[in-house]
Amino acid sequence: MSLPHVVIVGGGFGGLFAAKALRRASARVTLVDRHNHHVFQPLLYQVATAGLSPGDIAAPIRWVLRHHDNVRVLLARAEGIALAARRVDLDHGESLSYDYLIVAAGAGSSYFGHDDWEPYAPSLKTLDDALRVRARILVAYERAERTPDPVERERLLTFVLVGGGPTGVEMAGAIAEIARQTLSQEFRSIQTSAARVLLIEAGPTILTSFPEPLRRAARASLARLGVEVRENTLVTRIEDGCVWLGDERLEAGTVLWTAGVAASPLGASLGVPRDRAGRVLVEPDLSVPGHPEAFVIGDMAGLTDENGTQYPGVSQVAMQQAAHAARMIGRAMEDRPRRPFRYKDLGNMATIGRNAAIADLGWLQIAGFPAWLLWLFIHIVWLIGFRNRLTVLVQWAGAYLTYQRSVRLITGTDNKH
Amino acid sequence: MSLPHVVIVGGGFGGLFAAKALRRASARVTLVDRHNHHVFQPLLYQVATAGLSPGDIAAPIRWVLRHHDNVRVLLARAEGIALAARRVDLDHGESLSYDYLIVAAGAGSSYFGHDDWEPYAPSLKTLDDALRVRARILVAYERAERTPDPVERERLLTFVLVGGGPTGVEMAGAIAEIARQTLSQEFRSIQTSAARVLLIEAGPTILTSFPEPLRRAARASLARLGVEVRENTLVTRIEDGCVWLGDERLEAGTVLWTAGVAASPLGASLGVPRDRAGRVLVEPDLSVPGHPEAFVIGDMAGLTDENGTQYPGVSQVAMQQAAHAARMIGRAMEDRPRRPFRYKDLGNMATIGRNAAIADLGWLQIAGFPAWLLWLFIHIVWLIGFRNRLTVLVQWAGAYLTYQRSVRLITGTDNKH
Repeated sequence: MSLPHVVIVGGGFGGLFAAKALRRASARVTLVDRHNHHVFQPLLYQVATAGLSPGDIAAPIRWVLRHHDNVRVLLARAEGIALAARRVDLDHGESLSYDYLIVAAGAGSSYFGHDDWEPYAPSLKTLDDALRVRARILVAYERAERTPDPVERERLLTFVLVGGGPTGVEMAGAIAEIARQTLSQEFRSIQTSAARVLLIEAGPTILTSFPEPLRRAARASLARLGVEVRENTLVTRIEDGCVWLGDERLEAGTVLWTAGVAASPLGASLGVPRDRAGRVLVEPDLSVPGHPEAFVIGDMAGLTDENGTQYPGVSQVAMQQAAHAARMIGRAMEDRPRRPFRYKDLGNMATIGRNAAIADLGWLQIAGFPAWLLWLFIHIVWLIGFRNRLTVLVQWAGAYLTYQRSVRLITGTDNKH
Repeated sequence: MSLPHVVIVGGGFGGLFAAKALRRASARVTLVDRHNHHVFQPLLYQVATAGLSPGDIAAPIRWVLRHHDNVRVLLARAEGIALAARRVDLDHGESLSYDYLIVAAGAGSSYFGHDDWEPYAPSLKTLDDALRVRARILVAYERAERTPDPVERERLLTFVLVGGGPTGVEMAGAIAEIARQTLSQEFRSIQTSAARVLLIEAGPTILTSFPEPLRRAARASLARLGVEVRENTLVTRIEDGCVWLGDERLEAGTVLWTAGVAASPLGASLGVPRDRAGRVLVEPDLSVPGHPEAFVIGDMAGLTDENGTQYPGVSQVAMQQAAHAARMIGRAMEDRPRRPFRYKDLGNMATIGRNAAIADLGWLQIAGFPAWLLWLFIHIVWLIGFRNRLTVLVQWAGAYLTYQRSVRLITGTDNKH
């Protein structure tokens, strides 16, 4: 009898840790992802702001899993799931049959019904997104240096971040530093330090997931970097090169979308109830209702804690849910009863520029430089078995000491060599 | 009276070193390049074969020149040169007037009249080229892992390099290492070591610019890596996924063009005689005939040594010509007579894989591991003021010790986010 076949869709934190957790399972495992690499998402903004290279925060999935002899990795796009037939449909008309399924396809950006804004306000989910955003930021300065028109110059040197979550805050801090420090000596016609960086939040406060004292510290750090934070401000329209804040029209060469997320559309193909953000409403053990052999984890899983709050879309949740789903598959194979998922919250952090951060560890709340050192330490230690940990450290040390961001390359713009 | 204006077209080795050499000149300098970065070309094949990140071998031109207060850097495409009007025409209808001009726009690939082959056999000149080639090589393995068809699998695992110069040899060695070592543990359905790597040379020998004993050593190193070298073999046709060697049709998933070069078409706009490769036939002092205020240097300059041999298209020639042109501009401003360009040949090297190389220093010819160590030393020292020298060293040390190539990322393939 052949071993049961576990199919994992997605090579993010959820999928990758599910595959790792199944290492000793008596099962064949197939992991499918449309990219060949796992991305260390918490540092994606560093690639978008030229602080790190793609290779510093990403690694080939099959390299990460090379010693997992029971895992096969396929570069393929999952296009649908047929729960009744226990089948995942891939691109090119292929498909995979499974005995157990873990769906961990993550989330994309939501433009809240304004998908036409996307070309003018790109978001940040993949490495290619980050490289495009990096090019856009750098090209804005290049164009400003070339133009003789002062109004156009001002427009080009205005950067707007729509959405005041951790990504928006981290991007705003990094973009402000690029303007004030990194580029300050390199241009002859423009004063890069005159660049405006605006962080727009529709709700009453940025960083909703943090306690107010830490939010105050973050606002102060952003102000020191010259970032204009506007809370309670609704973006009502985005066009090429400008954004409306309520009735106010703001000319801005670069607008970036760091607001809502929407779970992968793959969840729709399951044909079970989902929440407003497209998350699949799973059972307490993370399985799909009526299908104990199929699990949904990470950003795609709609599940609330004992207070009725949806678990946040962070890597910690995805990794813990991955481990839980793998355990439940082990129990299923042994006909043992299921257990509900329990989340152990290890804390929450965000950085603001190169020497401030906020950290909420529950038992400890810190801000400023100590929090930044903690952030640095955790992220370096945490770069899961990425052999390039040392190069990241060297890169960061260099960037820190010199104020430089060494990866300021505009690529992807050759039309034809 | 305002200072004379020197315009430099191109930010490669020639243009960059011309700007540096003009540091103390009483002149305003404008350097124009269509990319924002200088690329360390001798290591471009390392990016194409996933050994280094783009950021390891490239740096923003304006960062390299940030302390050169008399230099302004513009991201722009030079579209033509009007010698009589002393004007460089840029994209977007702009133009620059000059008192002195240095044209250093380099060379692209020549398909010897078969430009229709380019989509099927891309070449390697820019960072974007290198990233595309990297993706193509890695995708070939991913497709081979997915396909159930053994014939298709064999086709996908066949890699052909057309052109046996240093780039072809270095690419062939690196691609063979990827197959035999880097990827050997990571695939489940294919034996990556079964991949075929062919190096095709139309002429009687690979590495024509090296003496025969070193070529023999290179052939032996390539044979050890399992590269099939075919000399005296003419490629007669290239289509999607196959290449004709004379009358022999060879199915190959990846064909890369490492053969001829053609000088930048910008030279044509000068309206002066050029050689068959499009190089501008310059005066012995590198100036354009009839225009002592305009110089052409590097891969664009058609100039022969005392034996009537064209100077090779290598960075050493470009850098020395850059210094010469800058000196001639200094002399012109002081009404002193011109001098002819003299080349000081410092030697010639090529690597084959991770522990063999050949080096011809004139007074010394070495091959094998000592030559590789010399190559490594020179290239690390030589990474002109790139602050990432240390990260490159760390990256290489890691790659050397583990046989890994850490930058095996397939990017640029997201259609839309």
